[in-house]
Amino acid sequence: MTSKPLSTIGFIGTGVMGSSMAGHLLKAGYPLHAYNRTQSKADRLVSQGAIWKDSPANIAKVADIVITIIGFPKDVEAAYLGPDGIIANAKPGGILIDMTTSSPKLALQIAEAASARQLLALDAPVSGGDLGAREARLSIMVGGEEAAFDQVKPIFELMGKNIVYQGPAGSGQHTKMANQIAIASGMLGVCEAVVYAERSGLDATRVLESISSGAAGSWSLSNLAPRIIKGDFEPGFFVKHFIKDMTIALQEADSMGLDFPGLAAAKAAYEKLATEGGEDFGTQGLYKLYQPRD
Amino acid sequence: MTSKPLSTIGFIGTGVMGSSMAGHLLKAGYPLHAYNRTQSKADRLVSQGAIWKDSPANIAKVADIVITIIGFPKDVEAAYLGPDGIIANAKPGGILIDMTTSSPKLALQIAEAASARQLLALDAPVSGGDLGAREARLSIMVGGEEAAFDQVKPIFELMGKNIVYQGPAGSGQHTKMANQIAIASGMLGVCEAVVYAERSGLDATRVLESISSGAAGSWSLSNLAPRIIKGDFEPGFFVKHFIKDMTIALQEADSMGLDFPGLAAAKAAYEKLATEGGEDFGTQGLYKLYQPRD
Repeated sequence: MTSKPLSTIGFIGTGVMGSSMAGHLLKAGYPLHAYNRTQSKADRLVSQGAIWKDSPANIAKVADIVITIIGFPKDVEAAYLGPDGIIANAKPGGILIDMTTSSPKLALQIAEAASARQLLALDAPVSGGDLGAREARLSIMVGGEEAAFDQVKPIFELMGKNIVYQGPAGSGQHTKMANQIAIASGMLGVCEAVVYAERSGLDATRVLESISSGAAGSWSLSNLAPRIIKGDFEPGFFVKHFIKDMTIALQEADSMGLDFPGLAAAKAAYEKLATEGGEDFGTQGLYKLYQPRD
Repeated sequence: MTSKPLSTIGFIGTGVMGSSMAGHLLKAGYPLHAYNRTQSKADRLVSQGAIWKDSPANIAKVADIVITIIGFPKDVEAAYLGPDGIIANAKPGGILIDMTTSSPKLALQIAEAASARQLLALDAPVSGGDLGAREARLSIMVGGEEAAFDQVKPIFELMGKNIVYQGPAGSGQHTKMANQIAIASGMLGVCEAVVYAERSGLDATRVLESISSGAAGSWSLSNLAPRIIKGDFEPGFFVKHFIKDMTIALQEADSMGLDFPGLAAAKAAYEKLATEGGEDFGTQGLYKLYQPRD
């Protein structure tokens, strides 16, 4: 009995998230070709056995499966849809997986362009942060053809724990938007609760003891409020990236005719924070916006 | 060896919360006198051994420890501060415990009036809802003299699990305000996430599978979003009571010179919901406000 050789993976975007994720695939024995705009960020993967390629097109030409996790929707668009992009250069029958948090509408466009060339595209954004990526326990939210999902599920399982097929193209991105929408207003609540506790003379850490395990409890209250109280505003998740996500979510809500006062208030607050120099804080940096009026 | 006889407790407010809480004290053997504005709501307690009294004054006259858990700050004020109130009629050395969610400023006023009569007052609001009351696992947030807290802690332990002394008079109420502030914006996020998921064509239950256990996770998302999806808007916690709490919290924040855009947006949304007939919904009824624009 001979086992089928493992698919060749092309991995584009070897930042904090991508390099951990690609590392798991390499460790599992997948032949992996890597590209990143800043080449040095791929050095560690290359030392682990990845083969460097100098463009998305050259990744696409050799890969059975292309995975991208890059910055902003405009970067995703350029990587997939340009004449030197992934779709124009992909091997017949290839599967293209965008794991960037990006626009649902762009995911649809990519899926249609891929389909026109007999390629399959999945949108599969993640949550779980750098730690989730390192420990291979990301939540992966997948949209696209279900047959393609079934085919690459073993690859997702090397990177994540909670892998859910959400529906047709764009559904992964829509799910991630719902995730960011829940977080956005929640962060206003967490920061306002901490500020309130401190300003009313309470010991904020002791307040967390009272409120973290009840109806006010949340991941953000348990994980980010203690960092706020310690004055730690280092990024887990960057303010500037969160603003990108909220902008997409608010546009999508608007195009559905929905008013989201919580999301709008959160986006406005984070944009104010960014204007005041906070775009490279972690999302808990929102706390700094709450200065008492004179 | 003879054991000290148990203190006589006067219990004012035998609604859904109070009757469960007083029931635990009765079961533990405490002599308990009860009063409620609507007498019939005390019938069950009386059948369990409580002695009915027909006014707060007559409760105060016989009780070593008075516990109140009643509706609104104006009710608390009337029960404690009037000429026929608890403080004017309490036994020397009595301990007065208000477990209503009420105003921190009123808690201070009560503590001062109590102190002038050599009485001790604690503000000790709770979270955990009717289920937490029934199962004696409330979170109890306590402000006031620490000596008084130590003295009545065994009584708190019959009603709750997470009992934290938060500081001087008013600190219990301030802690509960921080709790409500965290919930308020969080509810906007939960409702907007569910509405977004549904309107973008996703299966909202499957979306919860992807997002509930990660950074978007919260008590509200795990417990109230599934009720929303099922169309269940029955109160756990009433919209009208939540508006009362948010009103107090926003007044307190304002008096500290703080702008809370999340709390303000949540309060405005809930007030709109109440105007449209939703004041007797549970807080998850906020979902009904999100109708698409024409």
